Amino acid sequence: MSRHEQSITSRETDYSEWYLDVLKAGQLFDYSPVKGCMVIRPHGFAIWEAMKDDLDRRFKETGHVNAYFPLLIPMSFLSKEAEHVEGFAKECAVVTHHRLRACEIDGKPGVEPDPTSKLEEPLVLRPTSETIIWNMYRDWISGHRDLPILINQWANVVRWEMKTRPFLRTTEFLWQEGHTAHATQDEAVEETVKMLGVYADFAEEIMAIPVVKGVKTANERFAGALDTYCIEAMMQNGWALQAGTSHFLGQNFAKAFDVTFQDADGERKHVWATSWGVSTRLVGAVIMAHSDDTGLVLPPKLAPIQVVITPIWKGEAQRDELLDYAYGVRDELKAVGIRVQVDTRDNMKPGAKYFEWERKGVPLRLEVGPRDMQKESVFAARRIGGKKFPIPVAGVAARVQEVLAEIQQEMLDKALAFRQERTYRCDSYDEFQGLLESQGGWYLVPWCDDSEQEDIIKAETRATVRCYPLEGQEEIEGKVCFKTGKPATHMAIFARSY
Amino acid sequence: MSRHEQSITSRETDYSEWYLDVLKAGQLFDYSPVKGCMVIRPHGFAIWEAMKDDLDRRFKETGHVNAYFPLLIPMSFLSKEAEHVEGFAKECAVVTHHRLRACEIDGKPGVEPDPTSKLEEPLVLRPTSETIIWNMYRDWISGHRDLPILINQWANVVRWEMKTRPFLRTTEFLWQEGHTAHATQDEAVEETVKMLGVYADFAEEIMAIPVVKGVKTANERFAGALDTYCIEAMMQNGWALQAGTSHFLGQNFAKAFDVTFQDADGERKHVWATSWGVSTRLVGAVIMAHSDDTGLVLPPKLAPIQVVITPIWKGEAQRDELLDYAYGVRDELKAVGIRVQVDTRDNMKPGAKYFEWERKGVPLRLEVGPRDMQKESVFAARRIGGKKFPIPVAGVAARVQEVLAEIQQEMLDKALAFRQERTYRCDSYDEFQGLLESQGGWYLVPWCDDSEQEDIIKAETRATVRCYPLEGQEEIEGKVCFKTGKPATHMAIFARSY
Repeated sequence: MSRHEQSITSRETDYSEWYLDVLKAGQLFDYSPVKGCMVIRPHGFAIWEAMKDDLDRRFKETGHVNAYFPLLIPMSFLSKEAEHVEGFAKECAVVTHHRLRACEIDGKPGVEPDPTSKLEEPLVLRPTSETIIWNMYRDWISGHRDLPILINQWANVVRWEMKTRPFLRTTEFLWQEGHTAHATQDEAVEETVKMLGVYADFAEEIMAIPVVKGVKTANERFAGALDTYCIEAMMQNGWALQAGTSHFLGQNFAKAFDVTFQDADGERKHVWATSWGVSTRLVGAVIMAHSDDTGLVLPPKLAPIQVVITPIWKGEAQRDELLDYAYGVRDELKAVGIRVQVDTRDNMKPGAKYFEWERKGVPLRLEVGPRDMQKESVFAARRIGGKKFPIPVAGVAARVQEVLAEIQQEMLDKALAFRQERTYRCDSYDEFQGLLESQGGWYLVPWCDDSEQEDIIKAETRATVRCYPLEGQEEIEGKVCFKTGKPATHMAIFARSY
Repeated sequence: MSRHEQSITSRETDYSEWYLDVLKAGQLFDYSPVKGCMVIRPHGFAIWEAMKDDLDRRFKETGHVNAYFPLLIPMSFLSKEAEHVEGFAKECAVVTHHRLRACEIDGKPGVEPDPTSKLEEPLVLRPTSETIIWNMYRDWISGHRDLPILINQWANVVRWEMKTRPFLRTTEFLWQEGHTAHATQDEAVEETVKMLGVYADFAEEIMAIPVVKGVKTANERFAGALDTYCIEAMMQNGWALQAGTSHFLGQNFAKAFDVTFQDADGERKHVWATSWGVSTRLVGAVIMAHSDDTGLVLPPKLAPIQVVITPIWKGEAQRDELLDYAYGVRDELKAVGIRVQVDTRDNMKPGAKYFEWERKGVPLRLEVGPRDMQKESVFAARRIGGKKFPIPVAGVAARVQEVLAEIQQEMLDKALAFRQERTYRCDSYDEFQGLLESQGGWYLVPWCDDSEQEDIIKAETRATVRCYPLEGQEEIEGKVCFKTGKPATHMAIFARSY
C-alpha cells in the first residue's frame, strides 16, 4: 500500500493507534528528526489557525492586547519562585553556547559547540513565561493608573517531555499565554474566571466539544498558582483531556519579582496576577472527540475545507460543462464565506476522491454528475452520515450554510450525549475501581480533598481528580468521601486522562 | 522627568539616539534581561500584527499555505550544505542539556544544568529553517504530482548577533519564511521573482515605503542560494535597509538532503527550491522611514489606532454631553472599520494628550470642544502636519477615510521624493568617496561585479553594493566600472546600510 492508502486501525482495536492513523491519513502532522518535536503539516496547521483567529478575536473583545516576550530566559529567573522552579526545572531545554565551530566527526567535516562561546549564565527556552514577563512588569507598573495590564502572547514553548504524543504532548508546542496584572485580588479572580468562560464558550461553539468547568486539586495545580481553573473534555475512549487552564497566581510572582504599585490610598502594594493558556493540544482534542474509523471528522467551524465539490464526468465535452457548473456553485458558496474547493483531478475515480476527502474530514461533499446538472441541483453527502440528499442550485449558498450549522450542532449534541452517558455517580471506592476497569468513563464522587489519598487512588487505578466542577457543589452537603468515609468537602470528577 | 516625558533627541543631533528615543517614547519595545533580545510591547506588536495579516493574505492569494516546523534542529543538519553552515555556524544558539537541578549559588538555592541530562547530539535553535524543512520534503515528495509545495511559516528564529539594535537586528526575531519546492528551474525562478513582487507591493501600499527591487552580489547573497533578490529602502539618514529577500536556491538543498522526484518522463530528478522572508525588522524600517523629531509617525494602514478623538470639556455636565457626542462620531467611524479611540481621561490637559498621541504616531486627531459640537463638526489635526480643518459630522466616516488615504499617499510620495533627491549618479570613485562622506545617500554607478574590489570599497567607505536594480540595467552598455575602469557589467547601488 502506498502511504496515501494505509488503513486506519479501528478505535475498538487500539485507540492510541487509531489516533495516530487518523493524524497520518489526514496529513495533519509528521514526526521530526528531533525526538518529541513534531511537524504540523498544512492541513493540521490550518485547524490551529482557525482556532487562533477565533480565540484572538475573543481575547481582544475582552480587552486584551498581544505582545511578544523573549524565548530565552536567564536560568536564575526560574528559581525566583520556589514552586515554579520545582514544577519546571526537570523539563527545561538549556542553551549553553552561542556558536558552532568546524571539526571532524568520524573523519568527515562536521560542527561542534565552540567552547569559547560558552555563556556565563545558561539560558532556558521558556516552558512558560511568567518569570520573564513579571520581570518586565516591574518596570511598567508604578501607580494604580498603570493597572490592569491585560496582555496575551502567541508563542512556542519547550517542555522536555519523556513521553510524547502528537498534538497532545510534544516537546515544543504552540500556545497562547495570557498574563494579567491587577490592583486587587477580586479583580484578578474575576479575570481568571472570565477567561475560563471564554475558553469554555470557544470549546462548545467552535470545537463542538462540551466541557466541564472546574478547579484543580493542589496535586494538579500549576506550579506557582493559588488556584488553577480548567476545562475538561471527554474523549471517545472515556478519558479526560484538560483543554485549557486559567490560573489565579495571587501575589506570588509579584513578590518574587518585586512588582508593586502605589495605590489610590498612597500605599505601596504587591500586584495580583493571573495567567491562562490553551495550546495546539486543542487540535488533538478535536480529533479525538469527533473522528471515526474512516478518518478525520472536523466541525465545520474549524474545517480548513468545509465543502468539497466533486464533479463526475465522462469524456472531455462533459468535463468542461460539468466543471463550469461546479465552479458556478463554488462561486456562490465562496461569496458567502464558505471555504470550498472543487476536485478537478482527472486521474482519480470518484470513490478514491470521496475516500480521500473523508479522511481529511471535510464536513460536506457535493457530488455533481450529468443528472444533477440536468435537475439543477447537487447531491449532498455529510461526513457525519445520514442519507444523501439533493440541494437545488437556486439558493444553494443559504442551504449549505444551514446544513453546515446543523452538522456543527449535531456534533456538539452527540459529544454531549456521549459524555452524559459515560459520566457515572458512585459512592464507594470498590465499586468505582470495578466500574472504571470495566467501562471507563468519568466518576462524579463525594470527596475529602486529600492529596495523599489522591496519590493512592492514582497508583491503584491510574485515575486522578480532573476537577471540582464549578456547578453542583451544593449537593456535597452531608455526604461522606467515597474513599475515606470522612465528611466530604467537594464533588470531584475522577477519570483517567491525557 | 518621568519616563513618559523623556525628550526625543533630534535626527540631526544623533540619528541612532533619535531612533531609540522614538521607540521608547512610543512604547514600542523594551530591553530584555537577555542581551540582544527585546520585548515587543503591545503598541509595537500591533504594528507587526497588521503587517502579518496583510502579508498572510497576499501569500494565500498567491497559493501558499502555512505550516509549522520545529524550533530545534539537529546540529549535524547545519553542515549538510557547505555554504549554509559557513554562513550560520557563528550565530547559532546551542541547546546541550534538557534538565536543571537544584544547587547552591553564593550560598543561596539556585539551579544549574543537570550533567546527567546532556544531549547526545546538541540541538541548535533555528537561525532559518531550510535544513529541517528539506529534510521533511524528502519524505513528502516522490512524484511530479507532489509538486509544487508552496509552504510558509510564521516563526521566531535566533541568530546570535554581537551588535544589536531594536527591531533592526536582534538575537531573536519574528519572521515568516516561505519554502517552496518545484519541478523545474524556471518555475522556481518565477516563484522567487513573484514573491519579491509581493514584498515590494506590500512595502509601497501598506508601509508607504518605496523600494528598489534588485539582485545581491555574491558577497551579500544568502548562504546556500544561487541568487538572492531583495528590496532595498532608504532611511531618513540616507542609509539603505534591506527590507526583504527572496532566494533562488537551485538544487543545493535538494542535493544536500537527497530530495528527488520522478518526473512525467519517468526520470528521477532533484527538486528546485526557493525561500523568502521578511521579519520584525520591517517595524524598524517603517519607523526610521517616516517618524520625526516629535516621535512616531505611522502610515494609516499600519497604525494600531488610526484616529483618536479628544473631547475637551469644562465641568461635569459638559463632559457627559461632549462624551456622548464623541462616542457618536466614534461609532460612525468604527462602523466602516476605522480603528478609533476616544481619550476620556480627565486627569490630563489637552496639550498633554495631544503630545502623547503624537508620540504614539496616531495619524489623525479629532478635537471636539463645545463649539465644534455646536457647529456639528470635529476639528481635525493630521500627524504629518498641514493646517487643522473642520470635518462636518454628517458624512464624517467617508471624509475620514478620504483623509487617511490622503495621508497614506502623501507619506509614500514624500518618501519617494526623499529617495530620488538622495540617489546620485557618479562615474568616479574619488568623487563617490567625497560625496558619500559629505552628503550620504545612494550612488547608482557602473560596476564590474568584483568581490575583492567590493571588499576594498567597504573597508574604505563602509558602503556596499545594496543591489543590482532589476530595472535600468540596459544603460550599462559601453560604460566602464567607476572603481577599476574595466568594462562595467552592472549598474549597482552603493550605500551604507543597516
